[in-house]
Amino acid sequence: MTLTNREMRSRIDQDGTLTLSLESVALGEPGDDEVIVRIEAAPINPSDLGLLLGPADITTLETADGGSLRFQVPESRLPGVSGRIGQSLPIGNEGAGTVIAAGRNAKALQGKLVGMIGGGMYADYRRIAARDVVVLPEGASAADGAAMFVNPLTALGFVETAHREGHKAIVHTAAASNLGQMLQKICLADGIALVNVVRSPEQAQILRDIGAQHVVNSRDEDFTAQLTAAIRETGATIAFDAIGGGALGSDILSAMERAAVDNSSSYSRYGSDTFKQLYIYGALDLAPTTLNRMTFGFQWSAGGWLLFPFLQKAGADVAARLRARVLAELTTTFASRYTQVVGLAQALQPDVLRGYERKATGEKFLIDPRLG
Amino acid sequence: MTLTNREMRSRIDQDGTLTLSLESVALGEPGDDEVIVRIEAAPINPSDLGLLLGPADITTLETADGGSLRFQVPESRLPGVSGRIGQSLPIGNEGAGTVIAAGRNAKALQGKLVGMIGGGMYADYRRIAARDVVVLPEGASAADGAAMFVNPLTALGFVETAHREGHKAIVHTAAASNLGQMLQKICLADGIALVNVVRSPEQAQILRDIGAQHVVNSRDEDFTAQLTAAIRETGATIAFDAIGGGALGSDILSAMERAAVDNSSSYSRYGSDTFKQLYIYGALDLAPTTLNRMTFGFQWSAGGWLLFPFLQKAGADVAARLRARVLAELTTTFASRYTQVVGLAQALQPDVLRGYERKATGEKFLIDPRLG
Repeated sequence: MTLTNREMRSRIDQDGTLTLSLESVALGEPGDDEVIVRIEAAPINPSDLGLLLGPADITTLETADGGSLRFQVPESRLPGVSGRIGQSLPIGNEGAGTVIAAGRNAKALQGKLVGMIGGGMYADYRRIAARDVVVLPEGASAADGAAMFVNPLTALGFVETAHREGHKAIVHTAAASNLGQMLQKICLADGIALVNVVRSPEQAQILRDIGAQHVVNSRDEDFTAQLTAAIRETGATIAFDAIGGGALGSDILSAMERAAVDNSSSYSRYGSDTFKQLYIYGALDLAPTTLNRMTFGFQWSAGGWLLFPFLQKAGADVAARLRARVLAELTTTFASRYTQVVGLAQALQPDVLRGYERKATGEKFLIDPRLG
Repeated sequence: MTLTNREMRSRIDQDGTLTLSLESVALGEPGDDEVIVRIEAAPINPSDLGLLLGPADITTLETADGGSLRFQVPESRLPGVSGRIGQSLPIGNEGAGTVIAAGRNAKALQGKLVGMIGGGMYADYRRIAARDVVVLPEGASAADGAAMFVNPLTALGFVETAHREGHKAIVHTAAASNLGQMLQKICLADGIALVNVVRSPEQAQILRDIGAQHVVNSRDEDFTAQLTAAIRETGATIAFDAIGGGALGSDILSAMERAAVDNSSSYSRYGSDTFKQLYIYGALDLAPTTLNRMTFGFQWSAGGWLLFPFLQKAGADVAARLRARVLAELTTTFASRYTQVVGLAQALQPDVLRGYERKATGEKFLIDPRLG
């Protein structure tokens, strides 16, 4: 059996042209310990867009031969992607589908519906090691299992990180995202206070509807006062920030510092002795991060947070525990809702692409390659 | 015996006025476990200036009654000092002098030359717990012992931190400072590579004269290339930054990332898997810190570094080991050179104050209250 497989690819050339295309490649037989999965669902997450579009300027979109798309990456941003210049990169971190072929040692998986992570999921088929797929629980659909890794494990990883580093409550930005909703559900179940930062009343409502107690809108005039009050009430000293650019992370550290100083009797020019941690895990805003250190003293840290280094550091036992929880709560805590399902070629239509690139509140795209 | 003691004080009022003055206060008898030290030398370190002048605008200096000075703190910076409003704060972290009175249990210290840390050292006398003073080694002067805590322990703390966190070489900014020279001497003695970042050829020469191998001038046109080359050569992945404001810290993280990417074969949109640490330990520039995250991926951390929290975390054994090394090398590795010695009242003369506030290369002030 040799299948012809369409794979979505992203390439940035020396001159800053980013090209998106569907490449046709022959898919070989599965090895002894491999399976071939027909992909039936793959989510479009912000982390996928990061690789798909890089730091390209979306307004430069042009259509090109064979349904491919072209963009320009601003020159100032090219050094940041020097490592991928000229490489045709497969896209799609995670997905789910049916095992249609299995190697000698993987026959038990034949016909099973599985979820998987490992890149290259925006394709008709994916050849993958049997140990890298997870059989979905009874009753779960491919769509249910399509996003069972990145968001669920990230949300659980935040809570795990907060525990391990001695924090009792959490601040989260862009908090109405699918990931943010999962985090709120976990925190409610585990009894951890969560301060949600959103940018609109609609986003606030999404979170309140699932039981959120602390939601602040960064566009409200009294945002700073609201944020400080929520942090004082919860005692939050760790924040996970999806945005990265601008001063929001700094504002959160400042609010934590104010809450700490209010509880302290003596002055130190180095600020309070309350340690404040900001983790930046996304880049919804590519602009530089601005830290107004004068407002939060010296007892702080800001850093990148990534799922895989976290899982490695946490160790195999913790990773297994988190994965087991995801499977057990796949259609409840970790349910994703999709507002649009599109085919592979459709995902490269300019209007469709602009739709998911916008990352609008409540909108979530799923790719089903069987749709075309 | 009741002594009248002059103490230098700094106070910020609600309206943003910062007042520096010498207050006369009566000094009681020493308790059973206390001594009274006549202060003969106290250094003016950047950390002292932070408390002395706060975030005041130095150009607003005005003389006032009784030799006191007044400044204005810009309104935007007032929230950062809200904790000290209305408090008359004693100044001077560390100093040295002669024990002129000792409590019942501290008689062995009578007449001894001691170094000490604990604040309030810009004064004629300091009453202090006997356990908080250190008898200076034979032959050392008060000036030798005046700065035996903050800079020496900070420099040793950097090396200790780099070791504990798994880094093999260090980047240091404002590297020609007294602290920076100590750090260079320690690194030479201990065989650790150090990349010194300075702002002038004169500063570079100071470091080369004591044996520095890697010195880069941030005002050179090819600074970025020089810095990257030095980081590639040394493998530095941790930086200690005295400046804080602006993009220098970010530039250092970027250079570390470039050096790491050059050594890596595969591309990841999350950057290299080399962990990069930036510690900000000073605030020579009060401006916000700008982090261009797009140039250094997600494997990074930036944070405040302070001596006392470090010593606490490191534990009593490590602190004792570092203190012992300072005493053993007090007049070699940890020698400070002073270019001006001024009296207490003299330190509040406008021209003298502007002199030490400037923090010019190679200039270092010492207060000897006996001079007036």
